Amino acid sequence: MSRVTVLTGGVGGAKLVLGLCHIMPPERITAIVNTGDDFSLLGLAISPDLDTLLYTLSGKGDTEKGWGRGNETWTFMEAAASLGGPNWFQLGDGDLALHVLRTEALRRGETLSVITANFAGAWGVATKMLPMSDDLVATKITTDEGELDFQTYFVARRCVPRASAIHFAGASAAQPAPGVLEAIMGADTILIAPSNPYLSVDPILAVPGIAKALRAAKAPVVAISPLIGGQSVKGPTAKLMRELGHPLTNEAIAAHYAGIIDGLLIDEQDQAQNPGILFACTDTLMRDLGDRRRVAAAAMAFARTLKA
Amino acid sequence: MSRVTVLTGGVGGAKLVLGLCHIMPPERITAIVNTGDDFSLLGLAISPDLDTLLYTLSGKGDTEKGWGRGNETWTFMEAAASLGGPNWFQLGDGDLALHVLRTEALRRGETLSVITANFAGAWGVATKMLPMSDDLVATKITTDEGELDFQTYFVARRCVPRASAIHFAGASAAQPAPGVLEAIMGADTILIAPSNPYLSVDPILAVPGIAKALRAAKAPVVAISPLIGGQSVKGPTAKLMRELGHPLTNEAIAAHYAGIIDGLLIDEQDQAQNPGILFACTDTLMRDLGDRRRVAAAAMAFARTLKA
Repeated sequence: MSRVTVLTGGVGGAKLVLGLCHIMPPERITAIVNTGDDFSLLGLAISPDLDTLLYTLSGKGDTEKGWGRGNETWTFMEAAASLGGPNWFQLGDGDLALHVLRTEALRRGETLSVITANFAGAWGVATKMLPMSDDLVATKITTDEGELDFQTYFVARRCVPRASAIHFAGASAAQPAPGVLEAIMGADTILIAPSNPYLSVDPILAVPGIAKALRAAKAPVVAISPLIGGQSVKGPTAKLMRELGHPLTNEAIAAHYAGIIDGLLIDEQDQAQNPGILFACTDTLMRDLGDRRRVAAAAMAFARTLKA
Repeated sequence: MSRVTVLTGGVGGAKLVLGLCHIMPPERITAIVNTGDDFSLLGLAISPDLDTLLYTLSGKGDTEKGWGRGNETWTFMEAAASLGGPNWFQLGDGDLALHVLRTEALRRGETLSVITANFAGAWGVATKMLPMSDDLVATKITTDEGELDFQTYFVARRCVPRASAIHFAGASAAQPAPGVLEAIMGADTILIAPSNPYLSVDPILAVPGIAKALRAAKAPVVAISPLIGGQSVKGPTAKLMRELGHPLTNEAIAAHYAGIIDGLLIDEQDQAQNPGILFACTDTLMRDLGDRRRVAAAAMAFARTLKA
């Protein structure tokens, strides 16, 4: 039976992985998750993309917002604010459990990958969730307001500052988490989720050994383009591409992943464009579970044509 | 105007301090608070007696239970339990704000006394709240189940194990927090709250310099007996006294505080007993705010007779 490995960031990537889980046995799927967004707030270790995937796959997520828990309460934030605590990052009461338990486990010397596997196990998630690395890698954005941490840029400043460069502090010394290279080399299909290529996928590719493994992998590698009609669905992809000097085209996405991917799944609106790589089309907008299944199935079907 | 210093533990002591705040300007009151119950759970620094006093004096407390926040939610505990986290100690969502912010401030190098003053300030508490020490002192109970940490004995084991001895780990190396000795030496009246003498007041007296300052203080020192009708109102005082071989009498309480106190305020039910020290009587049961004011006023009036 085929094994699928997906490189993914946050909300958009989690939708794709959920779609995959509905068209194949979840235990055959490995998600390699961006941890470049991870940060520390109030001494708590927060892994937003891992948590988004965990909530999405466990069914405990807020399906309206796409991140955080469903039926969340906010008493902690209110109390912390009354004591002068920060309130720029939303820490739900239930969400805190992940952060507090993760922080405590890290302090005991457990690795992020073991902690993540334990959380997934406790919540009945059969998909294998791997952080890209157990080492700290921090996405930093050089902007007209100076160099910003990812969460400062993304949450506190709402992507308003103009970006000129992105780098991943700590990446050169980081190692892929246990299982990451094996999941790439052993996969029958490899997908790159329609997450932000610069902010969510590049940190994964920046961990030494991962890009090389993708190039060496026997499996076809298909990326799902984050662009629809020359725009990003959500988040700062389009704005960033403009600021970094890339045209808002699938050709630019294909060029970004050149050497890594064998094909690009693009939105049907964009089929007139030739991305300069093997491509397939579907409606890539994922509004509901049906869409998620369809996009996942289209990516898998496309990959099968590349394998032959 | 007179300055009052109170040595206090948790719930019972907080009631007395609240009563005092209603009969005199709160900013003239200094509470020296037991921190022998302090412990770490999930990496969070928890100071139960400081928090009980903070909640009580700020009006944010749960007046039914006598500890914790009012209008508390419990989403964190539920989520943590679903991840295999401990559930023997109740951590409310809003309560977590104190623990998370305190832990973070301690990590930054702030002292518990500064942190406590900041919390009190943020919540408009005018009473000066001092931890007995900024150093770690941990109450340990020797029982028929072995040596237990305070919270294990008190919360997890509900005081069921039979105690044979109590000691305060770290006390001999601890220093009184800044302001503690000054609050004792500069007070016009010193009260010892009707907290558990063995578990809540003894840790304070075990910090080097505090008992000596109480003996040297010019102010009269009045303890309010925790016994009513030869029983403790709440908590393990009576059970502990039996197990430690003390008769359940005010004489035993007076003997315990011998050399420290000048007088004992006892319950009117117990006035036939002579505690062997100067004493006064009132109804010492504190059900409501009126009771708290009455007991505080009785203690202050008694102290005035001792000063003359």
